[in-house]
Amino acid sequence: MCDICVMTAVKDRMLSRRGFFAGAAGAGLAAAAGLTASAPRALAQGHTAVTDMTHELSADFPTFFGEQQFFWDQKFNFADHGFNLAEYRVNEHTGTHIDAPLHFSADGAAVNEIAVENLVAPLCVIDIAARAAEDADTTLTPDDIRAWIAAHGEIPQNACVALFSGWGEKASGPGFRNADAKGVQHYPGFHPEAAKMLIEETGAASIGSDTLSLDPGNSPDFATHYAWLPSGRFGIECLANLDRMPAVGATLVIGAPKHKGGTGGPARIFALV
Amino acid sequence: MCDICVMTAVKDRMLSRRGFFAGAAGAGLAAAAGLTASAPRALAQGHTAVTDMTHELSADFPTFFGEQQFFWDQKFNFADHGFNLAEYRVNEHTGTHIDAPLHFSADGAAVNEIAVENLVAPLCVIDIAARAAEDADTTLTPDDIRAWIAAHGEIPQNACVALFSGWGEKASGPGFRNADAKGVQHYPGFHPEAAKMLIEETGAASIGSDTLSLDPGNSPDFATHYAWLPSGRFGIECLANLDRMPAVGATLVIGAPKHKGGTGGPARIFALV
Ligand SMILES: [Zn+2]
Ligand SMILES: [Zn+2]
Repeated sequence: MCDICVMTAVKDRMLSRRGFFAGAAGAGLAAAAGLTASAPRALAQGHTAVTDMTHELSADFPTFFGEQQFFWDQKFNFADHGFNLAEYRVNEHTGTHIDAPLHFSADGAAVNEIAVENLVAPLCVIDIAARAAEDADTTLTPDDIRAWIAAHGEIPQNACVALFSGWGEKASGPGFRNADAKGVQHYPGFHPEAAKMLIEETGAASIGSDTLSLDPGNSPDFATHYAWLPSGRFGIECLANLDRMPAVGATLVIGAPKHKGGTGGPARIFALV
Repeated sequence: MCDICVMTAVKDRMLSRRGFFAGAAGAGLAAAAGLTASAPRALAQGHTAVTDMTHELSADFPTFFGEQQFFWDQKFNFADHGFNLAEYRVNEHTGTHIDAPLHFSADGAAVNEIAVENLVAPLCVIDIAARAAEDADTTLTPDDIRAWIAAHGEIPQNACVALFSGWGEKASGPGFRNADAKGVQHYPGFHPEAAKMLIEETGAASIGSDTLSLDPGNSPDFATHYAWLPSGRFGIECLANLDRMPAVGATLVIGAPKHKGGTGGPARIFALV
């Protein structure tokens, strides 16, 4: 951070603290102690806003396989034990989650082995929502990537390239899986040629989708998973709130789980703008 | 970000991309595609480094109750099924994890209800490691907080106040629980009066410890948990790498899990410096 930014940040903090104490005088210190959303301030040096890119996870969150994959089991409760505590069981590929290279390779990196440098990533959002509204089976193609680069510049090293289809809004209902009478799912995904292009021509470290899979829902063969993950790169599925992101300029902080040997897992993901 | 920072960030990105392409020419694009740690660059506008504050989670990670709390169960394997996939079962209070207000209150905020603004937090590190090396039962007291403020200034709004005891290094062995012959654990924690002071006099939204509990290991009554969590604030236990943090100036990004109604859960936590 340059000296001017340092001074701005310090000033912002002083202002926000002054506002805090002023409000606290009337409202009681405990209640006002920063537990509600604060006014814009110097947030993570140089950023002014954080957006949650994570869907809430619960027993009924839609899944690729169509069956319940999250089970929450309360073991202690406040009335009887003086505290609340639960354990949960979850399929690693449930909710907003990571696909580690190991998910589609014999010996690729597990989720705990993803380089930390790739978990704080420039976010590139490629918007195919208009096409997806007409055709749920549409894919993100090399032409979409070329058009994005022409408009916004090269894809930065370590970037996460995200497919915005508009599917995030559907996550609470059956339209998210969008299965037909034969059980075939219909939602957008990355065309395998797009994955290959990103591998060969860019320094992108991850791809993300607001749908249930990196592949389109009607893929017969997981061709995009097989192109992308064995290359040592990772994926993110079920991203939320991509509609609130600029095409370029946000930084994604990808809170992947860190369990040893995992093929992926539910993640907490934020965007700093 | 000020104009000068914008220019610096753009220049850094151009330099790092140029370096990338230069290296790629010799090494093959796929292998060089940003998958290893890169040289310092403009990371999350204005930051130059990310530190992982999370311990790796596995079946043998030490727990407060002293029993295994993480169980990983592979359901599909690459040789037989063409992909790897597991499910896991975990106690919400295992590994580097969150204590939501609900953990020690009848109806406090669940882990999915913690305000996002408090999950990107100025980190204040209070170092009691020298004392902890002499006395495992030492606590972080109001005097420690006063000394920190005298040296580093007011505690910022929404801050995470972290106790650095040096216990992070012990996380792979029995010294982490450090139980005596009677089963009483011995490691540092926050004195309940320190929790009360932070509630009454600061805008801190969370406290964190590099030990297994917000309370000292020999606490008979969870007094710090009962002081802090019902106030609507949250805690972090088993933080890693606090020895690498400055007393002030880092930003903690707290990737809390987001399952509905949770009392806490394993989290992925980064520090941006
Ligand atoms: Zn997956
Ligand atoms: Zn806990």
